[in-house]
Amino acid sequence: MSIIVLGTVALDTVKTPEGRRHNLLGGSAAHFSLAARFFTDVNLVAIVGEDFPGKHINFLHKKGIILTSLIKGNGKTFRWSGEYKGDLNTALTLSTELGVLSIFKPTIPEHQKKIENVFLANVDPEIQMHLLKSMHRPKLVGLDSMNYWIHNKRQDLVRLLKDVDIYVANDQEARDLSGEHNLIKAARALRRLGPRFIVIKKGEHGVLFYCDKFIFSYPAYPVEHVVDPTGAGDTFAGGFMGYLAQAGKINGKTLKKAIIYGTILSSFNVEGFGIERIARLTKKDIHSRLNKFRNILAF
Amino acid sequence: MSIIVLGTVALDTVKTPEGRRHNLLGGSAAHFSLAARFFTDVNLVAIVGEDFPGKHINFLHKKGIILTSLIKGNGKTFRWSGEYKGDLNTALTLSTELGVLSIFKPTIPEHQKKIENVFLANVDPEIQMHLLKSMHRPKLVGLDSMNYWIHNKRQDLVRLLKDVDIYVANDQEARDLSGEHNLIKAARALRRLGPRFIVIKKGEHGVLFYCDKFIFSYPAYPVEHVVDPTGAGDTFAGGFMGYLAQAGKINGKTLKKAIIYGTILSSFNVEGFGIERIARLTKKDIHSRLNKFRNILAF
Repeated sequence: MSIIVLGTVALDTVKTPEGRRHNLLGGSAAHFSLAARFFTDVNLVAIVGEDFPGKHINFLHKKGIILTSLIKGNGKTFRWSGEYKGDLNTALTLSTELGVLSIFKPTIPEHQKKIENVFLANVDPEIQMHLLKSMHRPKLVGLDSMNYWIHNKRQDLVRLLKDVDIYVANDQEARDLSGEHNLIKAARALRRLGPRFIVIKKGEHGVLFYCDKFIFSYPAYPVEHVVDPTGAGDTFAGGFMGYLAQAGKINGKTLKKAIIYGTILSSFNVEGFGIERIARLTKKDIHSRLNKFRNILAF
Repeated sequence: MSIIVLGTVALDTVKTPEGRRHNLLGGSAAHFSLAARFFTDVNLVAIVGEDFPGKHINFLHKKGIILTSLIKGNGKTFRWSGEYKGDLNTALTLSTELGVLSIFKPTIPEHQKKIENVFLANVDPEIQMHLLKSMHRPKLVGLDSMNYWIHNKRQDLVRLLKDVDIYVANDQEARDLSGEHNLIKAARALRRLGPRFIVIKKGEHGVLFYCDKFIFSYPAYPVEHVVDPTGAGDTFAGGFMGYLAQAGKINGKTLKKAIIYGTILSSFNVEGFGIERIARLTKKDIHSRLNKFRNILAF
């Protein structure tokens, strides 16, 4: 089954200990789509500006991502610039230019409203709500957010979470929104806000999964050479949701497998700047690393 | 096969968000022994002062730990006092009173010098070296240290590591001693100092294992109610080395199993103050949690 993802498509400028890159293709929906496409048809909903390079559009198209609802607005593309130091876990945002994102109200054609798997990647919760309301009968709704919205649009986010099945957060976001430090307690508190499934991404430390029936904890796939972690969380979400959409059913087995695919996809993502590594990734690469990971974890 | 462990036996005073306890039985060798005893005969080498409560000696004795080389010196027992805040990963040391530890030169009887499995738990590297030199033909030597020695007796520690098979460090220590931030790179650098096996403990984030042939990464067992993390690393080392001593051979399978036992033992340790939880732990508890962990990790 196909999936629809709402989020940002951006031009990123990043600096990491490995170097500096300007105007990379980035954004939550771009990273998500490029991971989810390995599992399912991906319908991307986002806005770019008049300055958005045609080569990025062509690239997404060539990767099979459905761009019907990637619209071009009057103005500039959303830009983010950030830097990673020493420990590559946390980005220092240097600048954010909203551009066309500030006027974005997603409208999608009738046939896309019927898509059953929905992912609301990181963007203003009001825009997320707007898209979710236009969907007919979503079967599985996932959501990611960020600290900015947790602090500045908490009420919108909390209202939205009531209609969400899967909340994907990083550890700091989970702590901030729940007020709990211990991540299992945090997950339990977030569960009470609505979502049946809580996925807490801990960067290089892996993932904690929580639902009423079970708790899973997985390490990250060990990556020696981290080049740029930008988009790792969105890539994880793309692998995770993409696999669930493909599997078509949710149980302990498919949820575990989804976490593992998300983990593997994001381990590739951090090995290059922006979408560099994911762009030339093959299914064979994914399955080879998946098997290595299985061997590591079996005892 | 039996094991001999050198380290501290201490009186700990700790404060955590869960409460405060005074003069708990603690110390690296005490925590190590109480975990390793589930797998093998444990010979403890340490010094306590005249003020050391007889009840603690009786307790260790009743747990089957061989106390031939637990000597009583003229002076006070080593005392440590620390506090854990918010995130329970890092202890803030409030005070350290060396007491009899400052005059400790371990001497052990002839029959203990023949023991093949040796663990040098955290204590002054000169004391560790002194014991190691007195051993006849150790087959497997493990070592733990701490930041204080890395910064103040680096040369002694580095010299000692040449004769060590397994270096067990926490993430910060591994980074400090290697000068590398990425933990795989850090492990590779530590490997060049001598030890064939590098075990990096990441607290609530699990363990990274490195050797020339393979790298393993495991999450911690998810613990919701962390009471006091003191001794978790030593408990891990006790489960890890104890299992290897029992297994009698080293390969990918036994190393993984050793890490898992270390992980499980330390997950119990943090659920009570000091040695409280480990004191009433049974083999059945251990195996039941081990099976849960296996189910979590299988996919």
